[in-house]
Amino acid sequence: MVKKLFFTSDYMEGAHPSILRALTETNMQKTVGYGLDPFCKSAAEKIRKACCCPKAQIWFLVGGTQTNATVIGSCLRSWQGVVAAETGHISTHEAGAIESGGHKVLTLPHEMGKLQAETVKAMLEQYYDDANHEHMVEPGMVYISHPTEYGTLYSREELESIHGVCNRFGIPLYLDGARLAYALASPENDVTLADLCRLCDVFYIGGTKCGAFAGEAVVVPRVDLMPHFFSIMKQNGALLAKGRFLGIQFDCLFQDDLYFHIGADAVRYAGMIREALESRGYRLAFDTPTNQVFVLLDNRRMEELGKQVEFSFWEQTDEQHSVIRLVTSWATTEDDIRRLIDIL
Amino acid sequence: MVKKLFFTSDYMEGAHPSILRALTETNMQKTVGYGLDPFCKSAAEKIRKACCCPKAQIWFLVGGTQTNATVIGSCLRSWQGVVAAETGHISTHEAGAIESGGHKVLTLPHEMGKLQAETVKAMLEQYYDDANHEHMVEPGMVYISHPTEYGTLYSREELESIHGVCNRFGIPLYLDGARLAYALASPENDVTLADLCRLCDVFYIGGTKCGAFAGEAVVVPRVDLMPHFFSIMKQNGALLAKGRFLGIQFDCLFQDDLYFHIGADAVRYAGMIREALESRGYRLAFDTPTNQVFVLLDNRRMEELGKQVEFSFWEQTDEQHSVIRLVTSWATTEDDIRRLIDIL
Amino acid sequence: MVKKLFFTSDYMEGAHPSILRALTETNMQKTVGYGLDPFCKSAAEKIRKACCCPKAQIWFLVGGTQTNATVIGSCLRSWQGVVAAETGHISTHEAGAIESGGHKVLTLPHEMGKLQAETVKAMLEQYYDDANHEHMVEPGMVYISHPTEYGTLYSREELESIHGVCNRFGIPLYLDGARLAYALASPENDVTLADLCRLCDVFYIGGTKCGAFAGEAVVVPRVDLMPHFFSIMKQNGALLAKGRFLGIQFDCLFQDDLYFHIGADAVRYAGMIREALESRGYRLAFDTPTNQVFVLLDNRRMEELGKQVEFSFWEQTDEQHSVIRLVTSWATTEDDIRRLIDIL
Amino acid sequence: MVKKLFFTSDYMEGAHPSILRALTETNMQKTVGYGLDPFCKSAAEKIRKACCCPKAQIWFLVGGTQTNATVIGSCLRSWQGVVAAETGHISTHEAGAIESGGHKVLTLPHEMGKLQAETVKAMLEQYYDDANHEHMVEPGMVYISHPTEYGTLYSREELESIHGVCNRFGIPLYLDGARLAYALASPENDVTLADLCRLCDVFYIGGTKCGAFAGEAVVVPRVDLMPHFFSIMKQNGALLAKGRFLGIQFDCLFQDDLYFHIGADAVRYAGMIREALESRGYRLAFDTPTNQVFVLLDNRRMEELGKQVEFSFWEQTDEQHSVIRLVTSWATTEDDIRRLIDIL
Repeated sequence: MVKKLFFTSDYMEGAHPSILRALTETNMQKTVGYGLDPFCKSAAEKIRKACCCPKAQIWFLVGGTQTNATVIGSCLRSWQGVVAAETGHISTHEAGAIESGGHKVLTLPHEMGKLQAETVKAMLEQYYDDANHEHMVEPGMVYISHPTEYGTLYSREELESIHGVCNRFGIPLYLDGARLAYALASPENDVTLADLCRLCDVFYIGGTKCGAFAGEAVVVPRVDLMPHFFSIMKQNGALLAKGRFLGIQFDCLFQDDLYFHIGADAVRYAGMIREALESRGYRLAFDTPTNQVFVLLDNRRMEELGKQVEFSFWEQTDEQHSVIRLVTSWATTEDDIRRLIDIL
Repeated sequence: MVKKLFFTSDYMEGAHPSILRALTETNMQKTVGYGLDPFCKSAAEKIRKACCCPKAQIWFLVGGTQTNATVIGSCLRSWQGVVAAETGHISTHEAGAIESGGHKVLTLPHEMGKLQAETVKAMLEQYYDDANHEHMVEPGMVYISHPTEYGTLYSREELESIHGVCNRFGIPLYLDGARLAYALASPENDVTLADLCRLCDVFYIGGTKCGAFAGEAVVVPRVDLMPHFFSIMKQNGALLAKGRFLGIQFDCLFQDDLYFHIGADAVRYAGMIREALESRGYRLAFDTPTNQVFVLLDNRRMEELGKQVEFSFWEQTDEQHSVIRLVTSWATTEDDIRRLIDIL
Repeated sequence: MVKKLFFTSDYMEGAHPSILRALTETNMQKTVGYGLDPFCKSAAEKIRKACCCPKAQIWFLVGGTQTNATVIGSCLRSWQGVVAAETGHISTHEAGAIESGGHKVLTLPHEMGKLQAETVKAMLEQYYDDANHEHMVEPGMVYISHPTEYGTLYSREELESIHGVCNRFGIPLYLDGARLAYALASPENDVTLADLCRLCDVFYIGGTKCGAFAGEAVVVPRVDLMPHFFSIMKQNGALLAKGRFLGIQFDCLFQDDLYFHIGADAVRYAGMIREALESRGYRLAFDTPTNQVFVLLDNRRMEELGKQVEFSFWEQTDEQHSVIRLVTSWATTEDDIRRLIDIL
Repeated sequence: MVKKLFFTSDYMEGAHPSILRALTETNMQKTVGYGLDPFCKSAAEKIRKACCCPKAQIWFLVGGTQTNATVIGSCLRSWQGVVAAETGHISTHEAGAIESGGHKVLTLPHEMGKLQAETVKAMLEQYYDDANHEHMVEPGMVYISHPTEYGTLYSREELESIHGVCNRFGIPLYLDGARLAYALASPENDVTLADLCRLCDVFYIGGTKCGAFAGEAVVVPRVDLMPHFFSIMKQNGALLAKGRFLGIQFDCLFQDDLYFHIGADAVRYAGMIREALESRGYRLAFDTPTNQVFVLLDNRRMEELGKQVEFSFWEQTDEQHSVIRLVTSWATTEDDIRRLIDIL
């Protein structure tokens, strides 16, 4: 197992060295708990600056599913559900966390993992046009992710449109940024943190997949969206006693713009893999501008590859072919890439 | 604030140095996620050995409230509630996490934070004697903590009795060991991990308050108690992508019996504080054998002390008096104690 | 069984004859469903008049537990709980319906089933004074019943006081009127429906125990308290397809002031039973001014009585004594009372 | 409004005259509450006989959404969801009742409202084949309705197949029989109550749409499927104090095979409507063998019709056309049909 290459996901190592250093340096300092410590305050302040949003509320939670369930649960009322792409993480791979909290995920078709403003608008109009809509779940929020589960990116224009639809219907727009660092590092991305603050009602800046041991930073540009969120976090088991553990990490990630750079290599390496694949006659299942590569393979080739490389199985397309996913991360090295390309 | 002494709680620092070392050493190794990695396996194996229970299931979760809600939710059926002391952590300070999961906490009177077997028995008998009991919440589990919220300890004999009652009524006994290291290090304690495996149906070994950044290890001696617990953890936002972060820490805590020693200083220091207090004419609110000290003070004295020492306010006893709590930890130094005693 | 006397409760017969008549007369008329029919509209209008509250929203639900869970669930937010007497129906005999909906019942001591304004105030003050209150369940609503589970009544003055406390803390007051007709018929009662509209934020007028087959009418004096209640009812399985079935019954109960008279005999008969008991040397467990009679008996006497009379067992007071409950209803006849007194 | 024809649904009148008669005759008899009375016992016994299933458990609940949520909630564990057609009543028109109880509805494509055994099988296989299935909601139950929301019927053979799939995967099959009387009365139906007992793990016999004021009878052929269902009903607000109200109605519906005949006219009349429509050049949206008729109309024609007839709007098919639904019931008269045909 030692010599195998790992391209399974972006959470296979520990933390970025600067995070380890910061944890080590601060280790024996004593602070209050539950995220009220100076490290969390400093991290929040840096994030507010990076977002150009001096009044934003910042909350630190531990993981993605937890963050999605806690944020969505705190925005929705009992009779409401959340609109998401059929392929949205909350729709498929969170073991029913949203429903466990009492809310339906109202799924819509997608294009390469992305919701279209038109699709959302049509769905909302149809809901309100239906004379029996009070017998149905009210769409109370829209969930998108950036990058999406397919590694694709919303353009600023697309976000503006979805924002416009949400605004017209008076429901919040929530953006899951589990892999946000890889979006920010992509040459194709034209969405800034300030844009997210302007266009989303709440979003989270992913830590776990972007260099932290664990941690996601929720940003709430307008402070009255989620009252009593501290208690809600506690109730959801999302409030760390040693909250500083998250604060120190994000303080580090937003020191000297680390978060804006940390995904750069991963995105560049993913591009190199795509290039190598295409030049060797492999077929990309779809093209994506971030740190995920989706390849269509016949099953025998997939099996072969699996002996030397760990990857994610994505889906079977027919009896003999499958799509696999290769993921790079902040921790991927040029050597990993060279070895992978050799194997290919 | 820099020079103030901190005796607020046992989660005011980072992690035990050996944990930091282990995290640093393993940082760039690549492993699979979600707790299926070799570090979690090794930690689980060490815990099984320490518990003399080679077949126990071990699960790593992030924090105490999360662990309580997830374990209790997975043991109870919809019509059942959990029996706990009125002072139990789940009864008071978890923001309704258990009820949020759909279950009533059925509270009973306590003695110094401890449930008495007789009280539990009487309650269960009364429930089943009541002709209308189907209109009431069925007691489906018993929750205790060791040490309790008052820092007190169950004797092995007391645990045997409660176990006997649970057994007779066929309901699981769950023990919250958030501060278990301080129990294990107390001279008054006669309960071993092997005893817990024999007498409890599920319990957790606390990490957060006992030297970890975060993390609690759930031990299930008989493996069929909580089927599908992996999915339940995921659904509850309690499954870390980088699960190894918890595995590495517990692997460390159970290396060379660290967990059995890590609380020793804290317990000794708490004894020194108690002694100093009594010799100086202070009144202990109650005596406790672990790392918490409860002092009865008049309010002016409390205010004075507060200028130099951070502590927890426990409760007001009358207009002029209050109880405060001083907590030592694995990170408390002899110097801290000397300075505190000087101030006293 | 035929000849036994039934004093178990006030839901042992069908419906008041005038209700049966109305159901029969309207049976083959066709109307729309879900409570949007003319019968529900007429009933709502009559209730608004009886309450002197022309703008009140009126909703018809099927039963008491359902009404309590649906109303409380729609008023509370996820981090909140409901304050109730330890003896409150929601605290004890609803199989955890409130907790099943995610909310803690925060219980307080009572006096003869009644909450005291002072007790509520002290609890709310203590909550907000506690520096850690964000770790606890926020008291978000107060629940009382009139008559209480002990058959006792709040005076208007007491209601004013509780209303004042709720008002000061900005939380709604909810009154469970499952047996409200028996309050309205009691000479000791000085609380009118108009008073309830003024002092409660929501209350319900009980039908099931007061002459209907089933049905409770929720009154919301200020219409913005429970938005989307129609959808919430549907989601809670509390929306009848043939909603008119409830409308017709309440239309009948509020025709010619029937609801104000329907409990009169029951209250008078309960008084006769109390008198008879006392004159024969029985001991009342406590005195109550409505349709319930609580008697302290030695167990042998209780067993004897049980051969001829069905009653409710209330509680055991010691090894040899118990309290039983005898309940009269709108359907109790003078003959029943004479026979009961003979037996006594 | 008086003279308009009502074909909106099958719950627009009161109850079958024989039910009214039975309620009247039994009105002043006194019985115990909560469904433990002799009427419920008698009704249950008759249903067991009609089902040829002497050991079946029978429970009486009030309405369809309530029954679905309560039954499904009591069969599923927290990590499981229920499989249903995209058009299933629980998927669309119950305001998220299933999700409110914590469970995802896992939707599948349908054919005319019906789930195909193959589709269910493929979905279950795919779930268990997926290496990451523990991150997803486990399909824990299959929900179908008979007749379906499209008025179509499963053949016995189709039920056998679905039963076979459920059986192989060890998950219960639940059938929603809200309109079961109209299935039993259809010449195309070859499924008996005994078949349902053999092929389903739980199903309900609809009362509300089949002649009762309200009420659904849940049949559980093997008694250990839903332990503590009484408490679960109570907790869900589904337990009537005057449970006899449901018992008397079902006792009546299963007296002299009434339930087997009560839908006959409705089905015959629906056939007459279909015939009339086709002979007059209308287009049926789809053919169905029970009491629902779906017609494709241009919008102007629909508006016209709406002046004289109340019907349900089903869906818009394009800018100028819509599908409407006409429903007959046990209470529809030949005169209604004649008038409708005249209008057409």
